[in-house]
Amino acid sequence: MDLEAMLASYPDFPKKGVLFKDIGPILRDPAALAWAADELLRRYPPADFDVIAGIESRGFILATIMSARSGKGMVMIRKPGKLPGKTVKLAYKTEYGEDILEAQHGSVKSGERVIICDDLLATGGTAAAAASLVEQVGGKVAGLAFIVELAKLCGADKIAGYNRKSLVVY
Amino acid sequence: MDLEAMLASYPDFPKKGVLFKDIGPILRDPAALAWAADELLRRYPPADFDVIAGIESRGFILATIMSARSGKGMVMIRKPGKLPGKTVKLAYKTEYGEDILEAQHGSVKSGERVIICDDLLATGGTAAAAASLVEQVGGKVAGLAFIVELAKLCGADKIAGYNRKSLVVY
Repeated sequence: MDLEAMLASYPDFPKKGVLFKDIGPILRDPAALAWAADELLRRYPPADFDVIAGIESRGFILATIMSARSGKGMVMIRKPGKLPGKTVKLAYKTEYGEDILEAQHGSVKSGERVIICDDLLATGGTAAAAASLVEQVGGKVAGLAFIVELAKLCGADKIAGYNRKSLVVY
Repeated sequence: MDLEAMLASYPDFPKKGVLFKDIGPILRDPAALAWAADELLRRYPPADFDVIAGIESRGFILATIMSARSGKGMVMIRKPGKLPGKTVKLAYKTEYGEDILEAQHGSVKSGERVIICDDLLATGGTAAAAASLVEQVGGKVAGLAFIVELAKLCGADKIAGYNRKSLVVY
């Protein structure tokens, strides 16, 4: 399956100089999305992890399909203020300022091995924050999984201490 | 499968007087999420629709699993500024002010029958806006699908002209 050929490209979105890679056409084709999940699960066999965490919001899509294809449960890593109950928040710097990610306390059980999903790895700030957050709620990061990686933005450097698998690298 | 028993309840979230219903425990159990999707697909047989639209962001989860279980593609209905290319925006009133939903032009083909998904139907403003948006991009709303409906908030009134299926009604 040629995922790269399916990705739509939009120059100068969301800002000038950025070539946006859109997974929309992959979502329109459930066989392609399932194939992407299975390719990532070939790299991260289900025997080697316990649960899948999706980063809001397109990461929820990849986490859901990987959960369905692996039989492992999923948890949500969200923007702040959206998760009820006791939570753990983590602030991190972005290109534009500061963002916050939040996870429910107890959503990952102590010692559980977690695969963290997002559609795209860019500068890596969000991915690194998600990994720290998973550790703060007691999990172990088994690896990070992306459909697309924009290698020029060096996101891999920010998550150098973790396993990382990306299906299409630019 | 007793989905209702699986939903976690949080009083006074996100504000005082609201009893928040959390689908988190259902996501931890992929068999439960698949069951929910299949129950909705029993009410909306795949022969009767062409594509599934998920409302950002928990609607993405239900849309993804319904897409996987039905073999139909999915499209994203997003908060503003996140979708590249030519889009259609729709502003709508909420309890707190105004929100905007956005869809990609051409994401739904003219005349396609669309099932719109979200995790929960509350006041119905977002659901009604999503339905209008689907129509504005050329689709026909085959129905709306929710895991949970908070009937006291009368969201059904705002989408009275459409089919509506909810698995757990409070």
